[in-house]
Amino acid sequence: MKMAFVLFDGLTFLDFAGFYDVINRLNFFEPTKGSTWETCAMTDQVTDESGLTLKVDRVKPDLGEYDLVFVPGGMGTRKLRFDEAFVGWLRQAEKVPLKVSVCTGSLLLGAAGFLTGKKATTHPNVYDLLQPYVAEVVQTRIVKDGNVITAGGVATSIDLGIYVLGLLAGQEAAENVKLQIDYPYVMQGVVEQ
Amino acid sequence: MKMAFVLFDGLTFLDFAGFYDVINRLNFFEPTKGSTWETCAMTDQVTDESGLTLKVDRVKPDLGEYDLVFVPGGMGTRKLRFDEAFVGWLRQAEKVPLKVSVCTGSLLLGAAGFLTGKKATTHPNVYDLLQPYVAEVVQTRIVKDGNVITAGGVATSIDLGIYVLGLLAGQEAAENVKLQIDYPYVMQGVVEQ
Repeated sequence: MKMAFVLFDGLTFLDFAGFYDVINRLNFFEPTKGSTWETCAMTDQVTDESGLTLKVDRVKPDLGEYDLVFVPGGMGTRKLRFDEAFVGWLRQAEKVPLKVSVCTGSLLLGAAGFLTGKKATTHPNVYDLLQPYVAEVVQTRIVKDGNVITAGGVATSIDLGIYVLGLLAGQEAAENVKLQIDYPYVMQGVVEQ
Repeated sequence: MKMAFVLFDGLTFLDFAGFYDVINRLNFFEPTKGSTWETCAMTDQVTDESGLTLKVDRVKPDLGEYDLVFVPGGMGTRKLRFDEAFVGWLRQAEKVPLKVSVCTGSLLLGAAGFLTGKKATTHPNVYDLLQPYVAEVVQTRIVKDGNVITAGGVATSIDLGIYVLGLLAGQEAAENVKLQIDYPYVMQGVVEQ
């Protein structure tokens, strides 16, 4: 499993970090051992909504190389969905087997055309912004429609990681990770198509 | 409220990001408007356990300047608690009104002497490593003993943020933030001394 974490200026840090922490643990389990990840962006560093700066591993790589592409949200998505250079780059992920977003990351998946005819979700405050890109906005925390998985507001990123890890490495692995990260909660609001 | 986020090589990214995302929202509420934060470390950038690199705002500032000092955990803490240069720097926070850690960050608070005679917690896997520094290890998710608040494993960082925000800005603010971040869970395992 070769994963790309797509980053950009104005992302929400926790959108990324919650998923990243959990999904990294794919390497602890036999079916998904040897999984790798890279942070990918249009620039060699990105700054979040509040001023934190993160270095980026690869600038504009071919996203078609990956098995999973993950897109976080953040205020930066509002402009970015109309940025042809960014959206054109993201569109390279069209054939990627698993496309995943959290929060307003789904607006970017939508702008790239990956949500056409699909059910999806986003942060509860911006259901209206997602509407033009999808067949149906489902007002819930996690939606899987075929090879695209979208999730709700920022704190959903941990649940999303656990959900995707469960899909790839199995339910026992997911329960094991919940113990590793000290997460006692039972995931709410998963809708599968 | 002037906050220092103490970072170091080998930190766990989500330990930091969960607390950071929530506590940043202090600025949305009247009692805590104008709160500021800075990332602080011994070096001008830090790299987490898995290879992500973050830029740091201030190198070795006087930690005594702050109202709140936050220390995340990560594998890096195992060595760092014996690093006299780091622990000596952290010790500058002695008079800081609120000292907060998540996961194995409590080992560093312990090494600095801030947990002497106190009840505290850490990641469930390392309760034994915390024991030498404290009066009592409480096997729970969040412990407040006077001006020191310690929390459990990595996913506890979001709950810790909500708990500390509730202390500083009030319970209504904490409930409001749970809606903002799409977090439906009821916090478990808070022990107050």
